[in-house]
Amino acid sequence: MAQTLLEATLSRIQPLEPKWLARAQARLDQLTKPRGSLGRLEELAAWYVAVRQELLPTIRKKMVVIFAGDHGVVAEGVSAYPQEVTFQMVANFVRGGAGINVLAGHVGAAVQIVDIGVNHAFTEMPGLLSRKVAPGTRNLAREAAMSREEALAALTIGIEVAQAAVAAGADILATGEMGIGNTTPAAALAAAFTGQSAAAVTGRGTGVDDATYERKVQVIEQALALHRPDPGDPLGVLAAIGGLEIAGLAGLILGAAAARRPVVVDGFIATAGAMVAVRLCPAVRDYLQAAHQSAENGHQVMLADLGLRPLLQLDMRLGEGTGAALGMFLVEAGLKIYRQMATFAEAGVSDKD
Amino acid sequence: MAQTLLEATLSRIQPLEPKWLARAQARLDQLTKPRGSLGRLEELAAWYVAVRQELLPTIRKKMVVIFAGDHGVVAEGVSAYPQEVTFQMVANFVRGGAGINVLAGHVGAAVQIVDIGVNHAFTEMPGLLSRKVAPGTRNLAREAAMSREEALAALTIGIEVAQAAVAAGADILATGEMGIGNTTPAAALAAAFTGQSAAAVTGRGTGVDDATYERKVQVIEQALALHRPDPGDPLGVLAAIGGLEIAGLAGLILGAAAARRPVVVDGFIATAGAMVAVRLCPAVRDYLQAAHQSAENGHQVMLADLGLRPLLQLDMRLGEGTGAALGMFLVEAGLKIYRQMATFAEAGVSDKD
Repeated sequence: MAQTLLEATLSRIQPLEPKWLARAQARLDQLTKPRGSLGRLEELAAWYVAVRQELLPTIRKKMVVIFAGDHGVVAEGVSAYPQEVTFQMVANFVRGGAGINVLAGHVGAAVQIVDIGVNHAFTEMPGLLSRKVAPGTRNLAREAAMSREEALAALTIGIEVAQAAVAAGADILATGEMGIGNTTPAAALAAAFTGQSAAAVTGRGTGVDDATYERKVQVIEQALALHRPDPGDPLGVLAAIGGLEIAGLAGLILGAAAARRPVVVDGFIATAGAMVAVRLCPAVRDYLQAAHQSAENGHQVMLADLGLRPLLQLDMRLGEGTGAALGMFLVEAGLKIYRQMATFAEAGVSDKD
Repeated sequence: MAQTLLEATLSRIQPLEPKWLARAQARLDQLTKPRGSLGRLEELAAWYVAVRQELLPTIRKKMVVIFAGDHGVVAEGVSAYPQEVTFQMVANFVRGGAGINVLAGHVGAAVQIVDIGVNHAFTEMPGLLSRKVAPGTRNLAREAAMSREEALAALTIGIEVAQAAVAAGADILATGEMGIGNTTPAAALAAAFTGQSAAAVTGRGTGVDDATYERKVQVIEQALALHRPDPGDPLGVLAAIGGLEIAGLAGLILGAAAARRPVVVDGFIATAGAMVAVRLCPAVRDYLQAAHQSAENGHQVMLADLGLRPLLQLDMRLGEGTGAALGMFLVEAGLKIYRQMATFAEAGVSDKD
């Protein structure tokens, strides 16, 4: 069943058609500004048009989806914060006190929180979607983080969450995540998929000290040596060294692309999720924009591998979807330029030619 | 009289006090995120607090001020567009059809348009402030663009516009400009103040071809040779090779800083105005953020000289205040983070220490 949904989703994802980009650019070139002078805002507008396959699309609803999960690998002492911060922060999201709540509010986006693997039994909370596959992953330094079945289940949940978001009117999605310890699986995935060394893709996460950083690199090296992940088997890689929330993010991206909804990818963790999605279906890359260049070491390696150029460089490294919320605002800015600016003819302004 | 207002304004501009930055950072460090993990958003919040000298300041009103002026140097054939585009675009601003109208609307900012030197007799238009010093500058390749009196008058108008904006409730200002040909005086000012060659600071403006580009560089070299601008006499430099709208921008920045209002500086032209302001009063630099790295060659030279690090790199080169409008939105994002996020104690989240 899960396998069927994944396969059906992958089969629906088609590369963008250049004719839509050209149609959008033709309109952009009639607007009262030197051609191309709004740079990446114009690029974002044309991209949005091509994703939606509509000449005058709108953005009525923006949504940040946050997947939260825990990580067995925290037993190795790879994080600066204790594991309970994952569930404490989920409660903070629900109450509206976290960074992503503030920035989502600032840009006018809704926030959907999904417990896909938190090591805590939540009482029912409004706004928290309970889709727990397991109470966290196992310790990837010692055994597979997930079984293939668990990884597939988490991917499927991501697809279903995307479908529900689209059904609820979401025109554009942003990826968010919470999971103490999750820069470790994200770095492991980056190493496995790009072939870079653990040291080249490992950063300090929430701010670990030198000793913890060294341990983190060793843990990732140990995991890679133990599992020998095969990049040709993305689901296997995800199961061995990934995370439940990362799988959820990958599924969300696939589900969004299948429904022709663009996705703004947040930072280091979210880009690892995007990398899983792209390895499962290369065409999905066309549906992605990288919100920002995270301050986390190794993010650039993944972005380069995916061919994504970050929109923002604000030295952010919080996650939660904070960068992606701002990125959605830029997409919206580009689309408004495209839709609302006067043409040379309308405004009676002399064009250059 | 004008001289008196300028001197009074300069005397009121004080460097930011580190204690306000420290107070703001102390609060930022209590919020439910790893310390410093919101990067430049945190920096913007602390900066805003220090400019306003209030522990919990607000942003109720954001304003983009656009100064429009014409340039005698267009007679040398340095622009891709005819001069009438300046007044046509002013009319477009008034009607709301330009890029800055769309982006100001997107970020919730008001737009104030000031005719400080357009070569056109406007009929009265709602929203257009008429403060014309002259119908354009003279040709800086052949004679001084302005007299010292004209330059001082334009600076004074900028100060008065800032005062009026503050009186109208503006908490933060963004600089905008319109003036066909104005990348030429801006590049000349950049060369005069930084000591770089004309070629190093001259770009293609709205998109000139190779022959026009060569001519533009030669025109700037000719102007520098003719006027021998003395960086120690900023008003003299401004008069010889500047522009009326650039003088207005410099005045706006000075007036805003004197009233403790932060200014987000747009691209190449606006940064030339900021450079004039900083040369008149070095402390004014503390009140500035550079919105973006323009695609215009030479912008980076000026930003480095001023010690400003751009917030955005979106390959924009339109001017009008378009980058600055987006920059104000980021300042507001930082301030909301600062004001609205829950603290570790409030949210019951375990801190790292």
